[in-house]
Amino acid sequence: MSISTDEKIAVVGTGLVGRAWSIVFARAGFPVSLYDPVDGAVEQALQLVEELLPELAQEDLLGGNSPDQVKARLTSAPTLADALAGAMYVQESAPERLEVKQELYRELDQLAEPNTVLASSTSGIPASAFTEGLANRQRCLVAHPINPPHIVPLVEIVPTPWTDAKVIQKTKALMSQIQQLPIQLNREVKGFVVNRLQGALLAEAFKLVEDGVCNVTDVDAAIANGLGLRWSFIGPFETIDLNSAKGVRGYCEMLGPLYYELAQEQADPRPWSEALVNEIDRQRREKLPVEHIGTRQVWRDQRLAKLVNAKKQADQKLGE
Amino acid sequence: MSISTDEKIAVVGTGLVGRAWSIVFARAGFPVSLYDPVDGAVEQALQLVEELLPELAQEDLLGGNSPDQVKARLTSAPTLADALAGAMYVQESAPERLEVKQELYRELDQLAEPNTVLASSTSGIPASAFTEGLANRQRCLVAHPINPPHIVPLVEIVPTPWTDAKVIQKTKALMSQIQQLPIQLNREVKGFVVNRLQGALLAEAFKLVEDGVCNVTDVDAAIANGLGLRWSFIGPFETIDLNSAKGVRGYCEMLGPLYYELAQEQADPRPWSEALVNEIDRQRREKLPVEHIGTRQVWRDQRLAKLVNAKKQADQKLGE
Repeated sequence: MSISTDEKIAVVGTGLVGRAWSIVFARAGFPVSLYDPVDGAVEQALQLVEELLPELAQEDLLGGNSPDQVKARLTSAPTLADALAGAMYVQESAPERLEVKQELYRELDQLAEPNTVLASSTSGIPASAFTEGLANRQRCLVAHPINPPHIVPLVEIVPTPWTDAKVIQKTKALMSQIQQLPIQLNREVKGFVVNRLQGALLAEAFKLVEDGVCNVTDVDAAIANGLGLRWSFIGPFETIDLNSAKGVRGYCEMLGPLYYELAQEQADPRPWSEALVNEIDRQRREKLPVEHIGTRQVWRDQRLAKLVNAKKQADQKLGE
Repeated sequence: MSISTDEKIAVVGTGLVGRAWSIVFARAGFPVSLYDPVDGAVEQALQLVEELLPELAQEDLLGGNSPDQVKARLTSAPTLADALAGAMYVQESAPERLEVKQELYRELDQLAEPNTVLASSTSGIPASAFTEGLANRQRCLVAHPINPPHIVPLVEIVPTPWTDAKVIQKTKALMSQIQQLPIQLNREVKGFVVNRLQGALLAEAFKLVEDGVCNVTDVDAAIANGLGLRWSFIGPFETIDLNSAKGVRGYCEMLGPLYYELAQEQADPRPWSEALVNEIDRQRREKLPVEHIGTRQVWRDQRLAKLVNAKKQADQKLGE
């Protein structure tokens, strides 16, 4: 199904995540109404977006639109009710505090039309924790982006136990239509999928440094110059599937026992001690003084944009 | 220090890994002597390399050399002694069986000049297991590549307890000179660093499917369209370092407790059951029939080559 780009999208909360979402919806052709309870926040967001758009156009990240075309689809809503009026979908990107979300969703549920989808950008709070008591809780779910969503396409769709299957389908369809790439969780789990996978890798990375096996730079290099290259266009399963002429089955016959031995060695869950965090931070600060983090974040996003672009070109030339 | 490209390299074992190494050394200017005990194996390897070279030239993976220049540096050695005569460095890529390596290293140690470095491509057997009793064991270590090394630059340097520090330095210097990117382990650990990190991610990926949280395709997408994009040019530590204005320290203050909770949930080491492997294989076979794996491997290497190229260009344009 294709959703008409006459339909209105509401972006509630216009910090880093919300304003990036507004670009994603607007470049796909949708009118976007932005609301934030903090005075001047929407105006600031619109200003920051306007500054960003020319660069994104250069990296072909505006879907063929001009910066002016994208900007023209963004409007500031004076009240939450104005933002929601006639909206078919709400992307909520409020602060990550349960009580904030609980209060906000009570309002959203009252103000929005009953069929309007209420999707949360939360990276960690399951939507069941702030939607249980709502009259129309079946239209609530999580649509968790990876920062920044106007560059990184992945979105995690996490339904609550009471989310309507049609709401899940509609949200996935909308995401696909706006060129984001949704994955679907069958149920709520702590950390969702992305941070569970990241957590598993980080746990081992921290242990390798704590146990003196290698330094921070070399752990990063092991991924960035090795495994991460494959993982950036095929995931971990396809990676092992292509490492044996017999696919996953052949790979697991060969290496399953080794990985089980490793899993046993890696099992102990360790908190990240202050001493360890200090040591890792010390090694990072040798590479990048803390006052240069902002500049490096800009560089990261530029590199990400180039990579996403190169990937699209390779998809077209060699196939996905 | 720069190593003269008059120095000879011996490649012992000319299967998939050995022949890829021969390209890596030859395109960097070194004369390479190839030896394999199996009749006709070297000739076959040279034939396969010759077929591969024009494509690599197109992707700018021959360091500015023509296919003929690279090919002219490769010679077939009739005996192991011939391969080793005058060699400054041996890259061993024999089959991954302990008894094979043990027997081979006894020969290598006897035939090679005492200062010749003996480096093993093994992905999992610590070099201490096949070098302990050798007269000149201090010149032995692991230099583990990621397949295929003529495209993926990472090399894991894993010393034994008796490897001379100068041998480690010389091997790292050689790797850097030939444009590979070495990381150094301080000691032998099971799986080295790359497979420990891969194992940690795979363990969680398998659990997510086993526990019905999401399907194989969506786990792959979570990495390939999300986390893997960053990891392909900054590793996991730099990723979290750039996710907080206060760097790793700020990130861990904020999210350390969540990741410790996740680590506790993820702790149980699980063998990959036959039923689970069958299910994952079934899902993969829906995407890729087993008879298409070979074609897809060629595609993967073409994509990898394009990615490595795009990354070099981005390094040059935006900085590393």
